[in-house]
Formats: sequence, structure tokens, C-alpha cells
Amino acid sequence: MTNERWISETLFDELGFRVSYKVERVLYEMKTEHQDLVLFENPYFGKMLMLDGATQVTTADEFVYHEMMSHVPILAHGNAQEVLIVGGGDCGIAEEVLKHKSVARLTQVEIDASVVEFSKEHFPEFTGPVLSDKRFDLVIDDGMKFVAETDRRFDVVIVDSTDPQGPGAVLFTEEFYAGVKRCLKPDGVMVTQNGVPFFQPDELTGSVSKFRKLFADGSCYVAAIPTYVGGHLAMGWASDDKSLRDVSVETLTQRYEAAGRFSTKYWTPEVHRAAFALPRFIRDRVDAA
Amino acid sequence: MTNERWISETLFDELGFRVSYKVERVLYEMKTEHQDLVLFENPYFGKMLMLDGATQVTTADEFVYHEMMSHVPILAHGNAQEVLIVGGGDCGIAEEVLKHKSVARLTQVEIDASVVEFSKEHFPEFTGPVLSDKRFDLVIDDGMKFVAETDRRFDVVIVDSTDPQGPGAVLFTEEFYAGVKRCLKPDGVMVTQNGVPFFQPDELTGSVSKFRKLFADGSCYVAAIPTYVGGHLAMGWASDDKSLRDVSVETLTQRYEAAGRFSTKYWTPEVHRAAFALPRFIRDRVDAA
Repeated sequence: MTNERWISETLFDELGFRVSYKVERVLYEMKTEHQDLVLFENPYFGKMLMLDGATQVTTADEFVYHEMMSHVPILAHGNAQEVLIVGGGDCGIAEEVLKHKSVARLTQVEIDASVVEFSKEHFPEFTGPVLSDKRFDLVIDDGMKFVAETDRRFDVVIVDSTDPQGPGAVLFTEEFYAGVKRCLKPDGVMVTQNGVPFFQPDELTGSVSKFRKLFADGSCYVAAIPTYVGGHLAMGWASDDKSLRDVSVETLTQRYEAAGRFSTKYWTPEVHRAAFALPRFIRDRVDAA
Repeated sequence: MTNERWISETLFDELGFRVSYKVERVLYEMKTEHQDLVLFENPYFGKMLMLDGATQVTTADEFVYHEMMSHVPILAHGNAQEVLIVGGGDCGIAEEVLKHKSVARLTQVEIDASVVEFSKEHFPEFTGPVLSDKRFDLVIDDGMKFVAETDRRFDVVIVDSTDPQGPGAVLFTEEFYAGVKRCLKPDGVMVTQNGVPFFQPDELTGSVSKFRKLFADGSCYVAAIPTYVGGHLAMGWASDDKSLRDVSVETLTQRYEAAGRFSTKYWTPEVHRAAFALPRFIRDRVDAA
């Protein structure tokens, strides 16, 4: 027992809540004054990437976040041809997006080329199918600058950010959301990683109030992700088309079949619709926006 | 920092996963060779009860479990007059059940009188309204024996068990479920605490397969509870009336208003219905039963 190493999330230490993972084998570790990154193997979760004390991705539960960040906006939209991912360097969301036959081009704007190189080496299960797909277009650029300047227009924009501390904070600003709105088509939709409302209620209210300044419809939907502890994760939702949040199970089923009927482990047409039924304490935070 | 005390859940230590809570103040502690119980205050969760290394109840998130274990079966049933809780010594579920005007009598069968005494002292916010309600009937008896022998018949039976290790294991047996069936009315429903499918998939499949030997309909519904870590908690569902799992939002809204329109923090008519939309990996475990 004495030689066991456990790595702890420090994200909620202030709240007196800490999650720890046993390390079977360290695969990569880099600690600088700017960043603390460790990739390791855990007995239950498989490969785990921890960045600055926050779990980013694990083999065992990546499917929940990646499926719900991709299939929900794409199948709610119904005819998504041009998709943009901001961030998303590990390519886990890109892999899901490219399962949709309707998608003609997927653009991923990642600020740091080394993140994609890292994923090529350590997450080939994501990058393999993505980087070999001719529809995938990787742009190394600042996401904020890209959405403010691009001439292209998108059906779906997926914001795959870290928490709003540190370098990811810019992806939670009104200025960034205004840029996304600029490059969304009129019936387009943006979704965002928006934190765990039970622990981070103000993050949700803050984002939704910014969405509502810019879009006709701003809200969130939810998913339960084992390593994003604290109940549901909220995924932000912004669109000028209010009908996109209210697509029937029948229509979703038809679209899913047309999309190629790929296999899923979390998403189903029923789960898609159910994700918009917000627990009252979360709905109250959205209503307060 | 050196004098800080943190208490860890040991439930998933084998899987290399551990959750720890900072202790601000210990309110009660009892460690014998049979049981390890500690009640303490945590900065975020408030009062927390940990039993044999597993979190039982906290001030901050008790509402999720207690609301979803009570309002879902009662409002799905629509006219629940006779309700039985097996276990439930802390009285957190009883408090929610008694909010329903339709309930004429609530019987709680708890094997250990000292659990209720403990709650009277430490959880008066639950026991206060319950013990003073004339509809509440506390029976100190073995739940297994009670359901096998009672002449009474119930509309709703709620099984508020610990995990199926140790003394709570009997509440996961086919013999116990057969006893519940015996004392349920023909259109009655039983719900159970059924573990976190992401970590305990066999527990879910095992229970549902037992339900299906005895009832026309056996399945589960889900809720995301911060301190029951690992994504969703499954709540088992067994009834001879298949329609109870398929009540519309409109009907639930009407029943909720008739029930007294009490305040909730998690349950809403939409959340009620959404709870039956199972993520595919959970549905697969139910289908395998």
C-alpha cells in the first residue's frame, strides 16, 4: 500500500470535496510553472488525462461528453453540413461529429498545435479516424480571433473549453459568443461546456445571460458524466431558432437513421429530448439569467 | 493544512476511485467491529452521514434522492393512499411522502430503532414534520418479515436500502421482492435504491431480472446525485401495471397540483418523465436482465 500513488483533482478543494484516482502507470507527465499535465492509467477508468488538477478525458467515460456535445446539436439542427469545433484538441468530439453523413466539412480551431500532436501519440483512437477523414480541417489559431474574422458560416458551433479559469476563460466572454453568432447561419446552434451547476451555479447563470443578449434562445441541457463529479454537467445552448430545442423523438429517430445509425453508448433519441428537462435547481439558475 | 481531517469513501477503492470530504467538525462518531459511523460537517455539503465508508445523506444534496424516490412512484400511481417505506430510518423520504395530500397512511418499517433515535437527534429537519404527522406509523421490525406477513396492502412501496453489502443485502433478494409483491395492490408500484450503473452494472441487471420474474414490468429510472458519484443512480421500478412508467407531463402536472403543489428542488413533471429515458449503456443493462 505504501508505494501506491493516487492523483487528486484539486478543482473543488476549496469546497472541501476531492476526487482521487489510483495511478497504475504514468504514461506522460509535464509540470511547468504554467501547466501541470499528467496522463496515467487507472484500474477502472483506463487512460486518464489530468490538466491543472482537473480531469479532461478518460477511456471509460469519454463517450458521455463527446456524444452529448456532438449528436445533440447536429441532430437537433437536422441538416448540419458545416460544423466548427473551437478547442477540442483531443479530437474526441471530432470523431463523433464525423460519424454524421450530413457533415460536409468539420473545421477545428485549436490554439495550441502541441495539443493535437499529444493526442496523435496518446489518443490515436480519437485522432486516427479524424485526421484521415478528408472532411476534417484543422486550423491552428486563436478561437476568439477565428470567429471574429472568418468569412465562413456554420450550422453548428461546438465550444469544447476547459473550465473558465486560466487560458480557457476567453471562451466564456460575451465578445467570444458574439463572434460565434457572427459566423453562425441564421438557423444555426452553438453548444458549450458549461460546468457542473451544483458546484458552479454562477458559471451557468453567467453564460446563459450572455447567450440571451445575443440570441433569441439561450439555455442549457444536461448529462451525467462520472468524472465530471457533482451531478449533471450543463451544456450551454444558444440559437436564434427556438424550435431546435423542441424536436420530437420521432424526428430525432428519423434523422439518426439517416445519419448512418452509428452506435452510441449514451445518446438515444429519448435521452436527447430528456436532456432538456432541467432539474428545478438548474432551471432556476437558467431562469435567473 | 497539517491539522486538516478529510474522510474518504472507500466504496470504490478497489476500482482506484476515491472521494474525500473535508471535516470541519465531527458531530458524532462511533466505530465498533460491526459498524463505522461518522456524522460531520463539511464546508459545502453541510451535515454529512457516512456509514461504513459510504455517504448516506448530506444537507446539500439530500433533496435529489429523497424527491425522486417519493414523488416519482406516488405521482406515477396517481392515487396513492397507503405507502410503505422499508428502511428509511433518517426519515428524509418520509418527509417528502407526507407532502402528498392523497397519502392517508405512511408505514415505515425500520429494523433498528436506534437509527430513528439518531435521526431525531441529528436530523430534526426530517424527523420533526414526520414524527408529528398522525398519518405516520413507525414499525420497528425486519422488513423481510414484515412484507412476508402483513395483512395490509399498499399502493406504493419504497425500498430505501444501503448498498447490497452487509446487512442491507437481504433487501436485494428475490425472496424480499416476492414479499413486496404479496403486499402490493394490483396496480401498485415498488421502487428501490439500485446503485450507480457505471460502477455497479451487475447490481442493476441482477435486480431487474428478479423484478421481471415477479412483475409484469421491471426496469429502472435515473437521477444524478452529487454524492452518489459515478453519473446516474438507478432507481429500480417494478409493477404489474405497465402504464405507470408512461404517464404524460400533462397528467403529472395535474396530479402535482392536486397533491398540494409543494416546492421541489429537483423533481418537475418534465424531469419525472425524462428520468425514464435511460442512457444506452444503462438501457443495455436493463435489456440484458
